[in-house]
Amino acid sequence: MFRECFDRVRNQAPLIHNITNAVTINDVANMVLACGASPIMADEAAEVEEITSICSGLNINIGKLSRHMIPAMLLAGKKACELGHAVLLDPVGVGASRLRLETADFLMEEIHFSAIRGNISEIKTLIHGSGHSRGVDAAAADALAGKDVEAMAAVLKNFARETGCIIAATGNVDLVCDSRTCYVIHNGRPEMEKVTGTGCQLSGLMTAFLAANPGHHLEAAAASVAAMGLAGEIGWSHMQPGDGSAAYRGRIIDAICNMDGTLLEQGARFEIC
Amino acid sequence: MFRECFDRVRNQAPLIHNITNAVTINDVANMVLACGASPIMADEAAEVEEITSICSGLNINIGKLSRHMIPAMLLAGKKACELGHAVLLDPVGVGASRLRLETADFLMEEIHFSAIRGNISEIKTLIHGSGHSRGVDAAAADALAGKDVEAMAAVLKNFARETGCIIAATGNVDLVCDSRTCYVIHNGRPEMEKVTGTGCQLSGLMTAFLAANPGHHLEAAAASVAAMGLAGEIGWSHMQPGDGSAAYRGRIIDAICNMDGTLLEQGARFEIC
Amino acid sequence: MFRECFDRVRNQAPLIHNITNAVTINDVANMVLACGASPIMADEAAEVEEITSICSGLNINIGKLSRHMIPAMLLAGKKACELGHAVLLDPVGVGASRLRLETADFLMEEIHFSAIRGNISEIKTLIHGSGHSRGVDAAAADALAGKDVEAMAAVLKNFARETGCIIAATGNVDLVCDSRTCYVIHNGRPEMEKVTGTGCQLSGLMTAFLAANPGHHLEAAAASVAAMGLAGEIGWSHMQPGDGSAAYRGRIIDAICNMDGTLLEQGARFEIC
Repeated sequence: MFRECFDRVRNQAPLIHNITNAVTINDVANMVLACGASPIMADEAAEVEEITSICSGLNINIGKLSRHMIPAMLLAGKKACELGHAVLLDPVGVGASRLRLETADFLMEEIHFSAIRGNISEIKTLIHGSGHSRGVDAAAADALAGKDVEAMAAVLKNFARETGCIIAATGNVDLVCDSRTCYVIHNGRPEMEKVTGTGCQLSGLMTAFLAANPGHHLEAAAASVAAMGLAGEIGWSHMQPGDGSAAYRGRIIDAICNMDGTLLEQGARFEIC
Repeated sequence: MFRECFDRVRNQAPLIHNITNAVTINDVANMVLACGASPIMADEAAEVEEITSICSGLNINIGKLSRHMIPAMLLAGKKACELGHAVLLDPVGVGASRLRLETADFLMEEIHFSAIRGNISEIKTLIHGSGHSRGVDAAAADALAGKDVEAMAAVLKNFARETGCIIAATGNVDLVCDSRTCYVIHNGRPEMEKVTGTGCQLSGLMTAFLAANPGHHLEAAAASVAAMGLAGEIGWSHMQPGDGSAAYRGRIIDAICNMDGTLLEQGARFEIC
Repeated sequence: MFRECFDRVRNQAPLIHNITNAVTINDVANMVLACGASPIMADEAAEVEEITSICSGLNINIGKLSRHMIPAMLLAGKKACELGHAVLLDPVGVGASRLRLETADFLMEEIHFSAIRGNISEIKTLIHGSGHSRGVDAAAADALAGKDVEAMAAVLKNFARETGCIIAATGNVDLVCDSRTCYVIHNGRPEMEKVTGTGCQLSGLMTAFLAANPGHHLEAAAASVAAMGLAGEIGWSHMQPGDGSAAYRGRIIDAICNMDGTLLEQGARFEIC
């Protein structure tokens, strides 16, 4: 199933509109290209409706948020919904300021997102209105172990039911669920946290997977999470003496570039609950 | 001839002012440094005239366009023209929105560009007011083969005559022409399309070549296009197992860093029509 | 002493707020992560006070300055001072425009910076109101040799006395001083100039060192400068055939990622005057 999800991205090469932050914008564009899709970055309110109309997916990321980008997010999001496109929200650092939390809440009221993808601390902040969020990184206190996973899956399914969105919460274990089914994904490496923007890149990747798999959003979202984790494992296996986080950053994108559906299917490690 | 063009860049180390988008701004700066020139990035209207005055070339790129950058583009462009600097327009994604097309048209009316460099779809959009443009990438339908090349060269020469600019249209074959002469350049690799920003980087590189070769703009523009394509070939030859588009991105810049005029002269593959 | 300074960064993992430019923002975030700290990038006036409150250091960088960022710099800087955080100014390209010089002067009046870090030309511009600054790079005329070093150290100590800040001026030799003591640091390689943003990265690194070493700001600042120079040396030693400035950019960050206090202590080369 994950194989078909990835193959459709490579075969259809969907055009993905990204409204994202300057910190990781280049990596997001390169990740979207690496998986076989095509990125366009645009955050000017005067053109985003037109831009998103020629695309099939929209990725909205609130990292390094500027107030002037919010109208562009709203216009693009409404237009993309109207056209039935896949629309994703990445609530970067939502626990770090009221502006980000209010913006995420506002966008969730106004736009029907296909999926919301954040680290576990960010997702908990969206659910509870607060969390252990420490800046833009997941808090250690939010790491999941053993029975925590089942409990968290139940919480996320409930949030998916309330919002009507697929919820993807990444961390030491990655959970991707709709209201009924939760993929618990074990791919990835802890060293990925030392590279800025792996979350932003995953959101671009997930939007491409969603756009290419309109009838299978949950599987597509889970497939993209497994692909990113697997890329982290493959990239790590290519590390050379002297390599560090900068080399790793490139090797993760390279692993997606060289991955196909078959490799993903073989390497994905997950259970469903 | 290409040798001298590149050697002058390394010998003169021209300072290049770039008004460019956040997606590829870091790569553009690193590419300008790699060829031996020196970049400065500035897009605040309050300082761009002063900034461009200490430079000898100006590179204007409309990717991820923001309305607030247009006045800065206009002020910098007019000042650079007044001072006789090389001024380049890169109409990124000009077919993707009216804002970008109107902005490109407006800048072309107000500023006399030394050169316009875009992919073949973008250049066709400028000529016809529309094209096959698919987001920011050249459309497959615009790929050139056999006799198409001659016909397109004639179209571009005509556009060069109308605008008084050198026109550089890149794609599977690269055409660089003024009103009378067209360089048809065969360097490069198709995998370069999988790296975001190779076009933006080439525009920075071309501006440096134009700035260092005031009496030989056509040759300088063609030389920079051949250098970029050759860098794509050399970079590809250094790819290792596990490498992908992220590694390739770095290897292209590295190849320019290690290139000199002699290597360019030997490696350039082109005819003139 | 340098060992302890670095170890404290790795042990405390301080959260660092960066208001910085789009050119090098990704590299700054990755460098801050590489040294063991955690970055957050935010430049929206509506959230910077809140953001900086959860951090322990603030890095303000005026490269590619936009007017709308100045209020954010002011608000964040005042709040960070009020909370006793480490606050750093990086006056990128301060000699390139009146806007940048006036902004640096304004910020220095309004905010008490723990440290000011720039290249030697930028620091001279701050002192004299003008300099040999050529865009964003240090001018060749400002290179230091022999007795120049002592004379410059005296000038910088005086500037440190006047401003109450630690002054770090980087170039062919790096000087880091307060009003009484100057570290003259010999680590580094000239090829680092071919990579855009090594100065911006160092400012992020230095802010992390300052934040983790509140009782030892001068040593911490000097330690970060030595660490960056040593990373340039180590990174260079890992260069492979075909590598150039893009590979070097990654290898410098990788060297910080793999460095610890002991390695820094062994590799630092400096005298005190």
